[in-house]
Amino acid sequence: MQSNPNIVVYFAHLAIEQSVINRRLRDVVCDLPNVDFRDLYERYPDFYIDTAAEQSALRRADLIVFQHPIYWYGAPAIFKHFQDTVLLRGFAYGPGGTALHGKDFLLVASTGAPVEEYGPDGVHRYAFEDLIRPIEQTARFCGMNFLAPLVLHGGHTLPADVIESHALEYRRRLEAYRPAGFR
Amino acid sequence: MQSNPNIVVYFAHLAIEQSVINRRLRDVVCDLPNVDFRDLYERYPDFYIDTAAEQSALRRADLIVFQHPIYWYGAPAIFKHFQDTVLLRGFAYGPGGTALHGKDFLLVASTGAPVEEYGPDGVHRYAFEDLIRPIEQTARFCGMNFLAPLVLHGGHTLPADVIESHALEYRRRLEAYRPAGFR
Repeated sequence: MQSNPNIVVYFAHLAIEQSVINRRLRDVVCDLPNVDFRDLYERYPDFYIDTAAEQSALRRADLIVFQHPIYWYGAPAIFKHFQDTVLLRGFAYGPGGTALHGKDFLLVASTGAPVEEYGPDGVHRYAFEDLIRPIEQTARFCGMNFLAPLVLHGGHTLPADVIESHALEYRRRLEAYRPAGFR
Repeated sequence: MQSNPNIVVYFAHLAIEQSVINRRLRDVVCDLPNVDFRDLYERYPDFYIDTAAEQSALRRADLIVFQHPIYWYGAPAIFKHFQDTVLLRGFAYGPGGTALHGKDFLLVASTGAPVEEYGPDGVHRYAFEDLIRPIEQTARFCGMNFLAPLVLHGGHTLPADVIESHALEYRRRLEAYRPAGFR
């Protein structure tokens, strides 16, 4: 039996006190015994990310989760800063950069607009999976397995029971997670 | 004749002292009389962006340029923070959010890898234009005209004369720029 935390959840939200969805998603997973939950804006309000500490957290994990709302077709800025300052050459890619090889990666994201707005007939013009190619390809370039994302669309108008069932599905997926060798 | 600056160039680089390409691209345009050149990391090393000042700079411009190297398939993090904290509802989109409507937008980017690495047979797997959809669609959602990007691929290995001719092309495009009504 796996008992130590083997999942790291990175989280960010610019106004968590106003959040409905991401606050609930945070609350249902942050206390799981196998989860190391790391709120990036709380840890690094000045964006001065501790590269060594975060590289250690990544090394310990079998599954790396990025959980956040979608702003401007991507993650909140601190996630990009995390990529720019933690996923360095020699750690995440390039010669000797194999620290993340074989790990699993899961994107847990929410959008304000309904899914119909993502596509050629919608205001956002592209399919959601086309807009998250940079996130997907970052994971792949680091040698990680990009798992099917867990995405909740239409956050501006969802009834409470839909949000709750999505939150419980998220919790269930993290509870049930096993590294590839243990599946 | 247009004499006031009507172009705002936003710029960011994590290590400008080590830059060859972006430093040269900066140097050839930053003193043009019609350019308001704004280095984001220099202005906001703590990421605390002055929203009102930047909204004013954007309002004054006919052409908005984002100039930066590509890190992890996107802009340096401070550009994302700029989007998250300056391109707000009521300014850039939503009810009353028409401040950027009709302006021109130009991406000036450089990549380390050669263009052949962008595509199904390359290490980056997707075409470059597919990876910059979030930048393109951000501009379009704000009602801007997304001009053909000026991209220099293969920065790790380019000869000096190729970089120089690209820099001069960049300068020429900004010198020659006229708003749509004046073309």
